[in-house]
Amino acid sequence: MKIALMMEFSQAGKNPIVLEQLQSVAKEQGHEVFNVGMSGDEDHRLTYIHLGIISALLLSSKAVDFVVSGCGTGQGALMSLNAWPGTVCGYCIDPADAYLFAQINNGNALAIPFAKGFGWGAELNIRYMFEKAFTGAKGLGYPPERRESQNTNAGILNQVKAAAAKPLLEGLKALDQELVKQAVGGERFQSCFFDHCQDAELAAYVKSFL
Amino acid sequence: MKIALMMEFSQAGKNPIVLEQLQSVAKEQGHEVFNVGMSGDEDHRLTYIHLGIISALLLSSKAVDFVVSGCGTGQGALMSLNAWPGTVCGYCIDPADAYLFAQINNGNALAIPFAKGFGWGAELNIRYMFEKAFTGAKGLGYPPERRESQNTNAGILNQVKAAAAKPLLEGLKALDQELVKQAVGGERFQSCFFDHCQDAELAAYVKSFL
Amino acid sequence: MKIALMMEFSQAGKNPIVLEQLQSVAKEQGHEVFNVGMSGDEDHRLTYIHLGIISALLLSSKAVDFVVSGCGTGQGALMSLNAWPGTVCGYCIDPADAYLFAQINNGNALAIPFAKGFGWGAELNIRYMFEKAFTGAKGLGYPPERRESQNTNAGILNQVKAAAAKPLLEGLKALDQELVKQAVGGERFQSCFFDHCQDAELAAYVKSFL
Amino acid sequence: MKIALMMEFSQAGKNPIVLEQLQSVAKEQGHEVFNVGMSGDEDHRLTYIHLGIISALLLSSKAVDFVVSGCGTGQGALMSLNAWPGTVCGYCIDPADAYLFAQINNGNALAIPFAKGFGWGAELNIRYMFEKAFTGAKGLGYPPERRESQNTNAGILNQVKAAAAKPLLEGLKALDQELVKQAVGGERFQSCFFDHCQDAELAAYVKSFL
Repeated sequence: MKIALMMEFSQAGKNPIVLEQLQSVAKEQGHEVFNVGMSGDEDHRLTYIHLGIISALLLSSKAVDFVVSGCGTGQGALMSLNAWPGTVCGYCIDPADAYLFAQINNGNALAIPFAKGFGWGAELNIRYMFEKAFTGAKGLGYPPERRESQNTNAGILNQVKAAAAKPLLEGLKALDQELVKQAVGGERFQSCFFDHCQDAELAAYVKSFL
Repeated sequence: MKIALMMEFSQAGKNPIVLEQLQSVAKEQGHEVFNVGMSGDEDHRLTYIHLGIISALLLSSKAVDFVVSGCGTGQGALMSLNAWPGTVCGYCIDPADAYLFAQINNGNALAIPFAKGFGWGAELNIRYMFEKAFTGAKGLGYPPERRESQNTNAGILNQVKAAAAKPLLEGLKALDQELVKQAVGGERFQSCFFDHCQDAELAAYVKSFL
Repeated sequence: MKIALMMEFSQAGKNPIVLEQLQSVAKEQGHEVFNVGMSGDEDHRLTYIHLGIISALLLSSKAVDFVVSGCGTGQGALMSLNAWPGTVCGYCIDPADAYLFAQINNGNALAIPFAKGFGWGAELNIRYMFEKAFTGAKGLGYPPERRESQNTNAGILNQVKAAAAKPLLEGLKALDQELVKQAVGGERFQSCFFDHCQDAELAAYVKSFL
Repeated sequence: MKIALMMEFSQAGKNPIVLEQLQSVAKEQGHEVFNVGMSGDEDHRLTYIHLGIISALLLSSKAVDFVVSGCGTGQGALMSLNAWPGTVCGYCIDPADAYLFAQINNGNALAIPFAKGFGWGAELNIRYMFEKAFTGAKGLGYPPERRESQNTNAGILNQVKAAAAKPLLEGLKALDQELVKQAVGGERFQSCFFDHCQDAELAAYVKSFL
């Protein structure tokens, strides 16, 4: 699985801590990590608004399979990512959240608080969440006897998101294009996106900003 | 403020507990509560998918000012509500979440886990969250010196959601209409919606299902 | 009620934040606060071991009615305070903990983690815990129908602690006396203790170290 | 390592759930589990008071190396266990707690809330706590550079507990002996204790109640 980590300006200084935990867990489980957001306070500036845009581009183009995002409380990233079709982003503060979200909702993104509750032990908790988010089968239901009903609703949610939203490219073009330009301006994002993007139209659109 | 509480089938049996806490806090603070989802296991059946639809109708028509929703983990309700334009829904598990979401994100909905972590003391925690969610001014920023930046991003998120989504009525019509019919079939929803709806087109659309 | 706040070296820098919240809540509810531990990194040095000693002195002499303590995870303070007879110290990380401990266990001390989980919103959470710890009646039971059984067990716990422990003064004298000397060496502790101590023997013992 | 699980009357019905998780983790790591408390609502009745007594007997006699206990909020078990010399019991609600307690405090018991916060996902959380509590080395410090200071204080705490308390047998004899009789009356406790007890005096004392 290809996993993108994306962090915004307010907690950019914590990127090395989070990346280390994610890479360590991903390595054990054979996943690949792309650090596509800010890697420190002086990096190309992104807000949670931009994270939503690059998450949509990466997931919809199948450049990556999963996105780990967050901000101070995680709520901004959560809502920004969920604003877009094709992104199904849960909120995660403990390892059981990560497991339950994988089994019940089978989504493709997580939003994590990187400031709220982030004290001693935070990097442990983050590691444990990644262990449970990225191990084993998904969509098994919880409790297991509710699997069918939960899978059905997860499928309907995808249809609802598709019905409620414009096609992604149309939605992106309806934005202030300066937002998109800033969102796609980071080198590590571009490298991940262009190396793995499987959607020619989205690739062309992103290229138009460079 | 008008507050709608909406619960789905999986935790419908807990509606009286949650409603009692919400009404008690709302009364102290002069808010009005509408219990528009399931009130017990035998009530008109709603899933978190339907909650997203009625939340969008109530908020976009200004029938209510705020929505309290949830499901087993809260994640389904969270994503279903956030799928729609005009709904800005945070995830809330403790009183500080409620306060921070009000100050930083200034949204109009909360999703709460009604099964995960819901043991002894859960009704206390719910009450304390409501106390902090519905008291005092909003949008003050946290920490306060980040107010301007946080308000700016909250405003941009609204624009992003509007750009990414179809107009609400168009989105609703793009759904399987059986979903909408079921969503709007509850008496308490209808009573709240028709008494307070300020959008004639949405009212006509809902009426077409009765 | 007289409430002593006591913090050790590892989190001494956070004393002003915690004290501010405690004083604010105490003022609303008519309680008096004594800041008897470290008030900053350069203050008279105390570890959680010392906190246990001064907590026992303050509570057993009735100089104060309640102690708020803590350390990095809170566990060291928790065990150090509970080592002594007359101190019944709970662990508290959320407002419902504070309420339940007051109703079920009716103890006289709390230990709080001041580093683990202490990020954005921590001072809010601390304030909300104090609001629930220091408001209203105690020992009411939770759920209320278990009141009698819970009060009975709380009473038996006091007997058990008295049976398991030496009398306080004897226990204190069995310690390395350098520990006691350091524990009682702070000015703010001394001021609180000597102004309000109702036990002449304990007062004489403490005086012997000055 | 020999691990005793002990649960009291108020949450006895959850013993099978907790035991299953503990056995599963222990098996992976080569530990042995003894289920010495209540295994269901109809079992030999124990309160958290009794848990403290059997915990002291098992740990001080080296019949077991570690105790997992709890009650509704966990606070009663926590204080009851910590009332006795030789028991160093932490409070644990998430996996990071378990890890930090092992590294910083290096204690020999945990108290867990089996009702507060115990909803969906509780058995997952319990499993994850056990995974972190019983894997790998202990006493490494957290953060690692504080190891020496933390180990020193953990050692001093043991001395303080020994100074504050009577010798265990003397303390037990100072109790209402009906409490001890009830505490040691369970078959599974007796089997674990007599099979592994390494203290002839304590064994003789317990035998006197049979």
